[in-house]
Amino acid sequence: MTENPFYSHEFHGDYDLISIGQLALEEGGVIADCELAVATFGTLNEAKDNAILIPTWFSGTHQIWRDVYIGADHALNPDKYFIICVNQIGSGLSTSPNNATGANAALAGPRFPDVRIGDNVVAQERLLREHYGIETLALVVGGSMGAQQTYEWAVRFPDKVLRAAPIAGTAQNTPGDYLIAQALREALTSDPGFSDGDYASNADVVDGLVRHAHIWAVVGFSTEFWKQEVYRALEFDSKEAFLAGFLEPYFTAMDPNALLTQSWAWQRGDVARHTGGDLAAALGRITAKTFVIPINEDQLFPVRDCSPEQELIKNSELRVVDDVLGHLGLFGVAPTYMPQIDQHLGDLLDTEI
Amino acid sequence: MTENPFYSHEFHGDYDLISIGQLALEEGGVIADCELAVATFGTLNEAKDNAILIPTWFSGTHQIWRDVYIGADHALNPDKYFIICVNQIGSGLSTSPNNATGANAALAGPRFPDVRIGDNVVAQERLLREHYGIETLALVVGGSMGAQQTYEWAVRFPDKVLRAAPIAGTAQNTPGDYLIAQALREALTSDPGFSDGDYASNADVVDGLVRHAHIWAVVGFSTEFWKQEVYRALEFDSKEAFLAGFLEPYFTAMDPNALLTQSWAWQRGDVARHTGGDLAAALGRITAKTFVIPINEDQLFPVRDCSPEQELIKNSELRVVDDVLGHLGLFGVAPTYMPQIDQHLGDLLDTEI
Repeated sequence: MTENPFYSHEFHGDYDLISIGQLALEEGGVIADCELAVATFGTLNEAKDNAILIPTWFSGTHQIWRDVYIGADHALNPDKYFIICVNQIGSGLSTSPNNATGANAALAGPRFPDVRIGDNVVAQERLLREHYGIETLALVVGGSMGAQQTYEWAVRFPDKVLRAAPIAGTAQNTPGDYLIAQALREALTSDPGFSDGDYASNADVVDGLVRHAHIWAVVGFSTEFWKQEVYRALEFDSKEAFLAGFLEPYFTAMDPNALLTQSWAWQRGDVARHTGGDLAAALGRITAKTFVIPINEDQLFPVRDCSPEQELIKNSELRVVDDVLGHLGLFGVAPTYMPQIDQHLGDLLDTEI
Repeated sequence: MTENPFYSHEFHGDYDLISIGQLALEEGGVIADCELAVATFGTLNEAKDNAILIPTWFSGTHQIWRDVYIGADHALNPDKYFIICVNQIGSGLSTSPNNATGANAALAGPRFPDVRIGDNVVAQERLLREHYGIETLALVVGGSMGAQQTYEWAVRFPDKVLRAAPIAGTAQNTPGDYLIAQALREALTSDPGFSDGDYASNADVVDGLVRHAHIWAVVGFSTEFWKQEVYRALEFDSKEAFLAGFLEPYFTAMDPNALLTQSWAWQRGDVARHTGGDLAAALGRITAKTFVIPINEDQLFPVRDCSPEQELIKNSELRVVDDVLGHLGLFGVAPTYMPQIDQHLGDLLDTEI
C-alpha cells in the first residue's frame, strides 16, 4: 500500500466502498476482495427502472461527474434518476495498486494484476445486481475509458442496457491511441524514481508524472486550444502557467501504478474480443438506443474513428459535440460544452424504449 | 566532441564542409568557426540565376533530399538547376554539439550556444554570397524546419528570393507545436544517461532516444497511418516492428545535444521577430512567388495553421498535399507523395518572375 492523500474522502467527498467479493480477471489474475468506490445520486424507484450507470475515465473519478454533469439542471437529474457512478478498478479509489491491503495485500503496487475493460463491466454488473437489485439500466453513459466501458456493457449485456451514450471514446481502441497511451506509460516508467513500481510515494515519481502531464497537454487538447489561448478563460495568463497550475498538479497527485493499471486496460479496449475479432458482429449485438457522442477536436478518439462504429450499431445516432478543447473538453470547462451534452443525453433519455 | 559514426560520409555520402568564419548569434553566442555541411547537385550557370537552396529539417540532412526529392525525373532537376542543400547548424554534420573541436572546442556538447532559425539563414546567405557568388535564388524550398528557414529567407532577404516553397511548416511556430517539441526534448533530457548533456556517447541516452522516437510515432504520423497499417507497404508486419525497425534506429543513431539544438530553434521559429510581433507585416514583406504546401494529415503544422499565413502573402497560393502519413510524409514514402510535390514545385519554377 502506498500512502496517497489524494485518494480519500477529503479530496473526493462522499462515496461508498462496496465489496463485490472475489473477482477472477480475464487475464488470469484474481482480486481476492474487490471493492468498488461508488457514489450515488438520487433514489432508486420501486420498479428499479430509473438507474443510470456512469463508469469513470482514465485518471478521473466520480468527482468530475458530480461537479459538472449531474444535477437538477442537467439531463443527469438526480430528482428523476438513480445515478450510480462507479470508479473503475485501478482508479485509486476502488481496489487499486495504491490501496491493496488485507486480503489484497499481495497485489500491492507493481504486483497488481492486469485488469481489462470487461473485468470492470463484470464487476459493475455484479454490484448492481447483488447490491442494488438492478437488472436493467435506463442509461449507461461514460467518457473516454468510460465510453469503452459503456460499449462493453451494451455488447456484453444487451438485455440490461436500454440506452447507451459513449462520449469521446471508441468500442475498439485504435493503434494510434495505443501508441499515445504507450508514450504516456513510458513517461512514468522511465523515471528512475519509479523503481519498477516499487516507489515509496508518488512524490518519488514527480518528474515522470510531470512529463506525463506534458504529453497530455499535447494529445489531450487541440492545437487550437493552445493557439486561441483558451486557458485565459480559466484565468491562467500563459500556457506555462496553465501547465504548472492545472495539468501538472492534476497528475502529480496521482499514483503511477494506478495510472498504469488504467492505461493498460485503455490500450486494449475492444468489444470484438466477444466475436473473434469481428467488430461489426460485436456492435451488431447492441440493442440499446445508442448515441455515439464524439468531440469534434478530439485527437484521441476523432470523429472519423467513432463514426464508422456508430454506423455498425442498429439503433444509433451520431451526435458530434463542438469543443475546441478536444478530448479534455470532457472536463466541461467550455461554457458551451454541457448544454450540448445535456441536449444529447436529454434527447436520449426522452426516447421511449 | 562526441564520437558518432552516423554523422559521417559513410552514412551521408558526399558533402563539403565549408567554413563561413565566425558567426555571431542572435542570442549572443558566437561560433568561432562555423562550418556548413553542403551537398550540391548540378552546375551553377554563368548568370548565376539557376540556384535553388534547400535548408534541412529537424533530424534530417541533405541525404533525404538527395535520395527522394532531387533528380532528372523531379522538379528539383540538377540538369537544369544548381541545387544547394545546406545542413542546418546543429544538424550533426554542420557545426554541432557533437563535432565542436578546434576553434569551437569550448562549444562542445551541452555548452553549444542557442541557435535560431535566423542564424541559419544568415549563415546560408553568407555561404551563398561569399563562396558561390550567388545573389539571387530561383527557389528556396524546405520542409518542416526547412520551411521555417524558407519563410525566414523570404522575409529577411526578399530581394534575393524569387520563389519560395515552404512545405509542411509555418512562418510562426504555434504554441501547440512548441509543446510537442518540449515533450520530445523532455524524453531526451530526462534520461539519467543524458547527464545534463555530458554523456560520452549517444548510446548512453538510448532509452531517451527510444522514447523520443515513440513520441514522434504519435505526433509525426496521422492516426489513420496506424489504423490503415500503412507501414505494411514498407514491409513491416506490425506497428511494433515498424517502430523497432524504422523509427527507433532512425533516432537512436543521432546525437541528443544536436537534436536539442535543432528543436530549440524549431520551438522559436517566428518571422514576426522582424516586425515587433506583427505577423502580417512580416509576411507582407515577402515578394517571392510563394507556394505554401501543407500536408493534409499533418498534426504538427496542420493546414489550418498554414492557410492563414498563406493569406498574408501577396503573391502566393495554397497547395495542399494529400498524404495519410501526416508530417512524416516528408520522407516521401507514399508513392503518391512525390508526384504532388513535383507538380507544385514544377508549377512554381515554371512561373515567370
